[in-house]
Amino acid sequence: GNTIRAARGTELTAKSWQTEAPLRMLMNNLDPEVAERPEDLVVYGGTGRAARSWEAYDAIVRTLETLEKDETLLVQSGKPVGVFRTHEWAPRVLLANSNLVGDWANWPEFRRLEAEGLMMYGQMTAGSWIYIGTQGILQGTFETFAALATKLFDQGRIPTPTLAGTLTLTGGCGGMGGAQPLAVTLNGGACLIIDVSEERLRRRLGKRYLDDVETDLEAALTKVLAAKAENRVLSVGYVGNAAEVFSALLERHKAGEFTIDVVTDQTSAHDPLSYLPEGIAIDEWQREAAGDPEGFTKKAQASMARQVEAMVGFQDAGAEVFDYGNSIRDEARKGGYERAFAFPGFVPAYIRPLFCEGLGPFRWVALSGDPKDIEVTDAALKELFPENEHLHRWLDAAAEHVEFEGLPARICWLGYGDRAKAGLLFNRMVAEGKVSAPIVIGRDHLDSGSVASPYRETEAMADGSDAIADWPLLNALINTSSGATWVSIHHGGGVGIGRSIHAGQVSVADGTDLAAEKLERLLTNDPGMGVIRHVDAGYDRATEVAEQRGVRIPMSSHQEQ
Amino acid sequence: GNTIRAARGTELTAKSWQTEAPLRMLMNNLDPEVAERPEDLVVYGGTGRAARSWEAYDAIVRTLETLEKDETLLVQSGKPVGVFRTHEWAPRVLLANSNLVGDWANWPEFRRLEAEGLMMYGQMTAGSWIYIGTQGILQGTFETFAALATKLFDQGRIPTPTLAGTLTLTGGCGGMGGAQPLAVTLNGGACLIIDVSEERLRRRLGKRYLDDVETDLEAALTKVLAAKAENRVLSVGYVGNAAEVFSALLERHKAGEFTIDVVTDQTSAHDPLSYLPEGIAIDEWQREAAGDPEGFTKKAQASMARQVEAMVGFQDAGAEVFDYGNSIRDEARKGGYERAFAFPGFVPAYIRPLFCEGLGPFRWVALSGDPKDIEVTDAALKELFPENEHLHRWLDAAAEHVEFEGLPARICWLGYGDRAKAGLLFNRMVAEGKVSAPIVIGRDHLDSGSVASPYRETEAMADGSDAIADWPLLNALINTSSGATWVSIHHGGGVGIGRSIHAGQVSVADGTDLAAEKLERLLTNDPGMGVIRHVDAGYDRATEVAEQRGVRIPMSSHQEQ
Ligand SMILES: NC(=O)c1ccc[n+]([C@@H]2O[C@H](COP(=O)([O-])OP(=O)(O)OC[C@H]3O[C@@H](n4cnc5c(N)ncnc54)[C@H](O)[C@@H]3O)[C@@H](O)[C@H]2O)c1
Ligand SMILES: NC(=O)c1ccc[n+]([C@@H]2O[C@H](COP(=O)([O-])OP(=O)(O)OC[C@H]3O[C@@H](n4cnc5c(N)ncnc54)[C@H](O)[C@@H]3O)[C@@H](O)[C@H]2O)c1
Repeated sequence: GNTIRAARGTELTAKSWQTEAPLRMLMNNLDPEVAERPEDLVVYGGTGRAARSWEAYDAIVRTLETLEKDETLLVQSGKPVGVFRTHEWAPRVLLANSNLVGDWANWPEFRRLEAEGLMMYGQMTAGSWIYIGTQGILQGTFETFAALATKLFDQGRIPTPTLAGTLTLTGGCGGMGGAQPLAVTLNGGACLIIDVSEERLRRRLGKRYLDDVETDLEAALTKVLAAKAENRVLSVGYVGNAAEVFSALLERHKAGEFTIDVVTDQTSAHDPLSYLPEGIAIDEWQREAAGDPEGFTKKAQASMARQVEAMVGFQDAGAEVFDYGNSIRDEARKGGYERAFAFPGFVPAYIRPLFCEGLGPFRWVALSGDPKDIEVTDAALKELFPENEHLHRWLDAAAEHVEFEGLPARICWLGYGDRAKAGLLFNRMVAEGKVSAPIVIGRDHLDSGSVASPYRETEAMADGSDAIADWPLLNALINTSSGATWVSIHHGGGVGIGRSIHAGQVSVADGTDLAAEKLERLLTNDPGMGVIRHVDAGYDRATEVAEQRGVRIPMSSHQEQ
Repeated sequence: GNTIRAARGTELTAKSWQTEAPLRMLMNNLDPEVAERPEDLVVYGGTGRAARSWEAYDAIVRTLETLEKDETLLVQSGKPVGVFRTHEWAPRVLLANSNLVGDWANWPEFRRLEAEGLMMYGQMTAGSWIYIGTQGILQGTFETFAALATKLFDQGRIPTPTLAGTLTLTGGCGGMGGAQPLAVTLNGGACLIIDVSEERLRRRLGKRYLDDVETDLEAALTKVLAAKAENRVLSVGYVGNAAEVFSALLERHKAGEFTIDVVTDQTSAHDPLSYLPEGIAIDEWQREAAGDPEGFTKKAQASMARQVEAMVGFQDAGAEVFDYGNSIRDEARKGGYERAFAFPGFVPAYIRPLFCEGLGPFRWVALSGDPKDIEVTDAALKELFPENEHLHRWLDAAAEHVEFEGLPARICWLGYGDRAKAGLLFNRMVAEGKVSAPIVIGRDHLDSGSVASPYRETEAMADGSDAIADWPLLNALINTSSGATWVSIHHGGGVGIGRSIHAGQVSVADGTDLAAEKLERLLTNDPGMGVIRHVDAGYDRATEVAEQRGVRIPMSSHQEQ
């Protein structure tokens, strides 16, 4: 096949920037720098696709190239199925991916329909054309550790709202988990990360994501404890089995030899065959797992039970402990450990307070293809929010550590109010020629008011409303009513078919007055959904934010009597 | 409590007709003439509600009264949760009712959330404020028998595309099923309807829905066979058990004594305790069912097996036989009859060909409250479509037989192209003062491109795509983009939680130019979804319609190469 790469520069293939943008972003999702398996249209996250087939891809491209400014293209699970006349405020593209009626919302029915060529898996930003590569993982992990630091500071457990002077212990330095050490050091802390694979650890050294690798535990400990004592940032990888190392370190922590402040894990626990049990050598892993999957699973679950028991032990002994979305608690429970759910998942623990403020992922892409456009937007954003140290720290770190994949892009977290300000700023910069082409603004479906996912984003809501899917649907409808350029509703992203419903929106700052009007509404109303969703669930912080920033809620006691 | 009744006349409580309309329609849904249990906010269909609670109702009313023409109210399962600034082309109200993430989409979880005050059941038009009483049942049944007649005529089995000269045998003359005899006679045919309850049959006599009731089978037969022979319309109810009577009549039909042309059934088979088995007297029904529900269920299923066996026998002997949405096939299967699914459901059999043309329910309501407004729109519609005899027959019949419930309303089925024409006509009539106030235009969620419901509307799709829910979601998104005044997405209407996802739209012909622009797009695009959904599933008739009437489909072979 031919390699896909989005056009750069200011020459249009489509009839306007409002249709050029989805065209370039679709292509960018399939750029080999961005997509995991572009030849199969797979962008990321298992089989998350950008289009259902190459014929569908070609037809989408053809349609976008001729679409008028008052027309709307409909895409059903990656296939373009219709074009209707709408109006200028309407989205140019509307997408629905992977959605199934409840009783049929399971993998076998989905796979059957996929095999028949009737559906595709959209994941979150694959089927909605706003994936920007691995920068998102680093940023999400950075954000999680930052929120954790804020929480410990608010509780009076650490002296500053950063990780300075703390030591974090974690496991798993793979594709996603490998973002942990840098995320910890970017937040000012010291980190010890355990992985059975020396090669996986060493790979991160080259990319500045990890500072050091040790095969001697005492040497590793000495380094990170010194950093902690001196308030220095440092990350060290230790080659070992997390089940074993966590247990050993807990004894010494309890004995008072040293203090570990934060404990988590991102080994691939969700798939027991990808978790190496104690007592099996790394080079026998594959043979053992293939030879006796059931026996191997039992051993892995027993080891995970031991690791989670150590994590609960750390919590009992005063450390901050959380599950980082790898299902290790549930596997440990299956492995026979009863207190596995004694510590929380990361969303209820740290992210939900952010969601209450409409805080969530805000990303933008330079359609010019020019990295300088990101540089100037970074600088402008720092100027727009001079007080937001956290944001400055991230933007500086991103400029240093992030290598662009595909079109230059940036991501940061912004809350209700600030997203609209940033969008309007970018639109002015386009109008004034401070960037060389329009800017695309979008976000992940993982956001404050855009997803129902009881095992992740809406785990343990205060009022028990975890499974209510009215919210992401209202989110898609209000974004469609607020000037988004494309809007999507997906099923099954992140946690799999049957387990989530979520919505996305993308807009284009093309420098026009119309775009400014649209951006102002869209980037107000979209995070506004996050605020009202959390007010409705009973979170006081959300009610405060709604009152202070003027989010209108008919049944909120202080408003509209 | 206080009785709710929508305001009549031209004095506005809200700031414009675009918000006055949803206000009056919400109230109209709760008018005691319309709602089944207004005191509980229950409109119809089990527990289909118009609002979650009286507090929610009050807050919706309060908000609609002050809503501006560029603001949008969000309603989550009957509760108003937010107001956002949008624009004039955006809907004034967006609703999502009863939606749950797939793995939680079951009655127990729904009931739990309902009991907690976090959700309500929206049914189809209850939670979306466009229920118009029982007229819809009569019209739907009329439409089904009309489509059946067309099919038999197209197959050369009857001489005219009406039921003239045919005899239809059916069972069940209850709340819904009671519309069958009139629907058959309105289509020109003779009908014999069997019900165990003489009282149920007699109740229909008073309302002109049934012509005669007999307790003697030979007398009943003589009357309907004479009518059939003379091409006369006539409906006769016979007091008896359908299982017994169907079997007896089959023998005589096979013996050549007479010919029954069409056979169906609307006893309440979906609930075996509501189906009276052979051998149990009607006055022992309740005691037997309550005393031994399991034993009674087995007996009911055995009788249904016998009834369905007779129905299959009629099909084998040349009659047209169909299931009318009461699950009698599945109960007969449970009762031990293996060929229960030998005949089809009514949607694949008759309604789907209509859906291929974007044909579906089109309803309108006179906000004036004046029945004369419906009279003049009826007349104008007949003038607009002078060739459409079927439509004329229905409108004349409706004028004669339908008593208005709540605000005067009318329903008829119109297809792609015609719906937009009708909407524009009504808007002109408002502008020219031919009606005394604006007209609300809406539809059921049961429509050609607005529902995924594998046990009913999308049963047995040609390509096996029954459970794909992308379509109703795209329908909601495109209607939101096309000028609808309110748009809704519901889960579980008609067939219950876990089994359907569907969308609704309502608009307001207020006589303005803007309304005309909106109506033209909305009433084109909405049925357009029905056409493209059926093109995509491989129905030739839909492809023909798309070609002839210019529906744009990117991957259709004849278009946009
Ligand atoms: N925040 C979220 O919700 C979120 C986001 C991304 C990933 N995840 C989850 O995080 C986990 C890791 O994802 P990934 O993409 O990095 O996986 P990966 O397979 O790339 O990496 C897993 C790493 O764990 C190591 N490992 C396995 N067993 C071990 C053991 N006993 N001790 C120490 N190390 C061991 C492996 O050598 C490997 O380097 C997955 O379960 C994934 O589902 C969650
Ligand atoms: N088109 C559709 O999809 C659709 C629409 C509405 C209703 N329905 C279904 O149609 C059925 C009837 O609905 P309804 O509201 O009229 O129910 P209902 O309970 O009001 O009426 C059922 C009638 O069947 C009679 N009956 C029971 N057992 C009988 C027997 N053995 N022989 C003869 N008569 C018997 C009862 O006396 C009663 O009059 C239900 O199963 C309902 O779900 C389907």
